[in-house]
Amino acid sequence: MAAKQTHSTALGNRENSACENLSQKSAERIKKLRRQKVDIKKLSNELLNSNLTALSQAITLVESQSNRHEDSVKKLIENCLPHAGNSVRIGITGVPGVGKSTFIESFGMHLISQGHKVAVLAVDPSSSISGGSILGDKTRMEKLVQSPHSYIRPTASGTSLGGVSRKTRESIALCEAAGFDIILIETVGVGQSETLVHSMTDFFLLLKLAGAGDELQGIKRGIIEMADAIVINKADGNNIDQAKSAKLEFNRALQLYPPKSNDWKPKVLLASGLKHQGIDKIWELIERFVKQTKSNQSFDDNRALQAKYWLTQSIEENLKKDFYSHSEIKIALKKELLKIDQKKTTAFEAAENLLKLYKKTKL
Amino acid sequence: MAAKQTHSTALGNRENSACENLSQKSAERIKKLRRQKVDIKKLSNELLNSNLTALSQAITLVESQSNRHEDSVKKLIENCLPHAGNSVRIGITGVPGVGKSTFIESFGMHLISQGHKVAVLAVDPSSSISGGSILGDKTRMEKLVQSPHSYIRPTASGTSLGGVSRKTRESIALCEAAGFDIILIETVGVGQSETLVHSMTDFFLLLKLAGAGDELQGIKRGIIEMADAIVINKADGNNIDQAKSAKLEFNRALQLYPPKSNDWKPKVLLASGLKHQGIDKIWELIERFVKQTKSNQSFDDNRALQAKYWLTQSIEENLKKDFYSHSEIKIALKKELLKIDQKKTTAFEAAENLLKLYKKTKL
Repeated sequence: MAAKQTHSTALGNRENSACENLSQKSAERIKKLRRQKVDIKKLSNELLNSNLTALSQAITLVESQSNRHEDSVKKLIENCLPHAGNSVRIGITGVPGVGKSTFIESFGMHLISQGHKVAVLAVDPSSSISGGSILGDKTRMEKLVQSPHSYIRPTASGTSLGGVSRKTRESIALCEAAGFDIILIETVGVGQSETLVHSMTDFFLLLKLAGAGDELQGIKRGIIEMADAIVINKADGNNIDQAKSAKLEFNRALQLYPPKSNDWKPKVLLASGLKHQGIDKIWELIERFVKQTKSNQSFDDNRALQAKYWLTQSIEENLKKDFYSHSEIKIALKKELLKIDQKKTTAFEAAENLLKLYKKTKL
Repeated sequence: MAAKQTHSTALGNRENSACENLSQKSAERIKKLRRQKVDIKKLSNELLNSNLTALSQAITLVESQSNRHEDSVKKLIENCLPHAGNSVRIGITGVPGVGKSTFIESFGMHLISQGHKVAVLAVDPSSSISGGSILGDKTRMEKLVQSPHSYIRPTASGTSLGGVSRKTRESIALCEAAGFDIILIETVGVGQSETLVHSMTDFFLLLKLAGAGDELQGIKRGIIEMADAIVINKADGNNIDQAKSAKLEFNRALQLYPPKSNDWKPKVLLASGLKHQGIDKIWELIERFVKQTKSNQSFDDNRALQAKYWLTQSIEENLKKDFYSHSEIKIALKKELLKIDQKKTTAFEAAENLLKLYKKTKL
């Protein structure tokens, strides 16, 4: 893939000019919305009645960085939370070029044909465009975009991983409250985004390509371990043989890991998003996963663990921010690092000194 | 392996009665030492002159939890630090039964035959015996124990991982200052000890056994990724064929990971600690690793990164301890977790409330 495409996601491609026009329009709409005083009670009720315009407005509010909306957002979330949670949250990742958009189109349409309502969210913490979301190129999801049973929301961007996670977690809750029972969360295979998406989903799906040295490239360490299923995509036409041997390879690699705490053994499947092949098998697998983990309690345990994870993450991120952004600490930290380099102090001694200074300035 | 052996390390086996007697004697010696006023200048000089009794005393001081020794320890470390660092630090891990003791005996004796001075330390954070170290069963390291060019120090125990890391990092520095140019740090393959040892060593060696379903058992997630070399131990006699196919298997698995930042490609080797086979090849490999990483600067970069890692680890562990041990926070945290369970708040909202409370109590 060319470098300039690295930042595109299945839902947003900043190189696309149609997308930029949409972005501009959407930015204006967001600005207008921000000036308005929002009737939260009305908005919540509409959202709970599956009104998609209300859902969009609500997510825009959640994504707004404005302090002026803080109380509104709180109220909104409070109204929606009791109706949230009844969904299967599926994380989907894979390097650019693996065919995520086409896969999501095919997979989403299959889910809808089974009577489900599907929301698609995207996470791209590498995006640094501030203020609102990107409305992107959805041409590879033509049918899904038009379906009345789908809701597609492009990239939640933000300057901090913590900010992105909060927005995404809250958007998930809003989608669930609006009646979506399957949430697909797409992320591009770079940076820390997989860990983030993994820690807010029930099932984690890794898309791979067969052959072409792909096994050696672009898999971030640890991603295979997070996967509940690896799907070799584009397993069609001349690719079939290569895909089959990749499946063998990954099955072998997965055996090197001990079983997960929920007793689920990750599976490797073949699929073609383009030809709609193997898509039904993937959903059957996920249904089996949900049944199994719900019967052994690990589904709910995992959600409770995730909530606790985000609570502590959020606390600890704040504690650290407070410490490292402290002006006196910044200066002292540089000095201590220099002393470590010069073998005049140890890391532990340096830490003690910095903590003493920090406590002193807080009194 | 029987459950009761899980806690034994290559250097210490608490089931052994000879060991308990030693432990008692050593505990008495430690108590006596604690009552003495230590002449740090004299101790440092003796240590820097490679006096092993002084080295033992110094490590005992470092391991002492007593506040009364805090200033002595600081002074001691300060004196030794400028002479520390000139060694190759090698982490060695593997599940119980893999033959770590026998391997270390054979490997250590080979290093000594090459003109090196070898210190062996052990890390076992799962050990909860408090106050001082365990002097253990060294019967499987008979020759190494007797060599004037080796120093063997059993498990540094402690109640917190942070405490154990600090003691071990400082013991490494003391051994180096005493002239040991190779430090082997052994850990048993459980808990977080591998991550800890990995983050204080230059080279990380994973010992494995071939066959017997071992591939499927007992490898903690992520350990294979940390390894710079995987050694299939006990590759002798009837085991040879199985060992060779295990080597193939691991080589294949390693290919699934992207190259490390230091450009080192992890290798799989066969060895037999008992028959002293393949041991020389392992040392040749490590020498090649050291040469390569020193020439591309990644050896020193890694050490600097590790120092920074321990600095931030230490700071952040303290910030968290301060927060979570706060009496008002403890109560409020329980309440917020309950509210999350009841879908009355989100993890992020709960975190905000707790942080506000924390700041208020600090003013």
